[in-house]
Amino acid sequence: MSKQSWRGSTLLNPEPPVLVSCGGLEQPNLITIGWTGTICTQPSMVSISVRPERYSHHLIKESGQFAINLPTEQLVRAVDWCGVKSGRDNDKFAACKLHAAPGSVLTDCPILEESPVNLECRVTQVIPLGSHDLFLAEVVACDVDESLLDENGKLCLDKAKLIVYSHGEYLSLGKKLGTFGYSVRKKKPGKRKK
Amino acid sequence: MSKQSWRGSTLLNPEPPVLVSCGGLEQPNLITIGWTGTICTQPSMVSISVRPERYSHHLIKESGQFAINLPTEQLVRAVDWCGVKSGRDNDKFAACKLHAAPGSVLTDCPILEESPVNLECRVTQVIPLGSHDLFLAEVVACDVDESLLDENGKLCLDKAKLIVYSHGEYLSLGKKLGTFGYSVRKKKPGKRKK
Repeated sequence: MSKQSWRGSTLLNPEPPVLVSCGGLEQPNLITIGWTGTICTQPSMVSISVRPERYSHHLIKESGQFAINLPTEQLVRAVDWCGVKSGRDNDKFAACKLHAAPGSVLTDCPILEESPVNLECRVTQVIPLGSHDLFLAEVVACDVDESLLDENGKLCLDKAKLIVYSHGEYLSLGKKLGTFGYSVRKKKPGKRKK
Repeated sequence: MSKQSWRGSTLLNPEPPVLVSCGGLEQPNLITIGWTGTICTQPSMVSISVRPERYSHHLIKESGQFAINLPTEQLVRAVDWCGVKSGRDNDKFAACKLHAAPGSVLTDCPILEESPVNLECRVTQVIPLGSHDLFLAEVVACDVDESLLDENGKLCLDKAKLIVYSHGEYLSLGKKLGTFGYSVRKKKPGKRKK
């Protein structure tokens, strides 16, 4: 390969374009966040980065709560729209014909009904970085739609038709290339003989 | 939708399963990181979360440098293997028949030659969270393979065939559902008439 050296940039791709809900249940807001990720397993923690000038920034800072709502293929237009419009000028739930429901644990954390997986998050730390403030938060509850569970109650997240964002494009998830641990897994002897 | 309330969990999906290279050029190591993301645009910053007991943890902490290497479909087996094996017992580059090259800017930051996009990162802060330590880092340089550039030098990241990880599965990127801003973009008058 022959490579060019560029200055630092936000080229980490692909990323999850999540819908974050915040504010109270009476005036809930939605914002699309690309700068997000899991940051710890025990306790379960996530981060989101938000520009201080965004309307959601003060809502999250004041309440110390937000929900990450995983978007599905059906929600892709709302994901885009909620990323370019402001909650200052729009009731985003109404404009997108979406609905806020109370979280199961947190009280100032409306969740997006139309998303099948909602992570209720309590902020633990806010770190100013420059253009964005980094919110660290503990995931205190997950609300999971029963349609994603199999007969044993196991989560089949592939049924959710989640989406991904890469370099300006919203994409569906493609073909399966492997499963965690497959590179070291021994083939079952029974299967070899077939 | 009818939802169950579960306790907090790491259900944020999908996520980028990146290969992180670290250590010196003489004994470089690779580790697969799922807990990563962009955290700031200006300056360009990323985070990775690493368990303190992982071999790479002290390499990154000592040098204060690492590279995020975006994995392609061709690298999926290495992504899996480098996530379940330890650099204490394995020369992962050799075992996966991969090659380390010097970064263009940082000196203690080997990059993965076979990855078409490498982000050279300098650690700015380490935050212990529990099972994982959160490393915040500035992206000081991006090394981009020329095969991804069009005739005007514009990056076409879709040519890279990046992969994504969701709930235990490695997946290719699927069909395009929209592009950033498409929900508010006016159609071109010329196109309407056709």
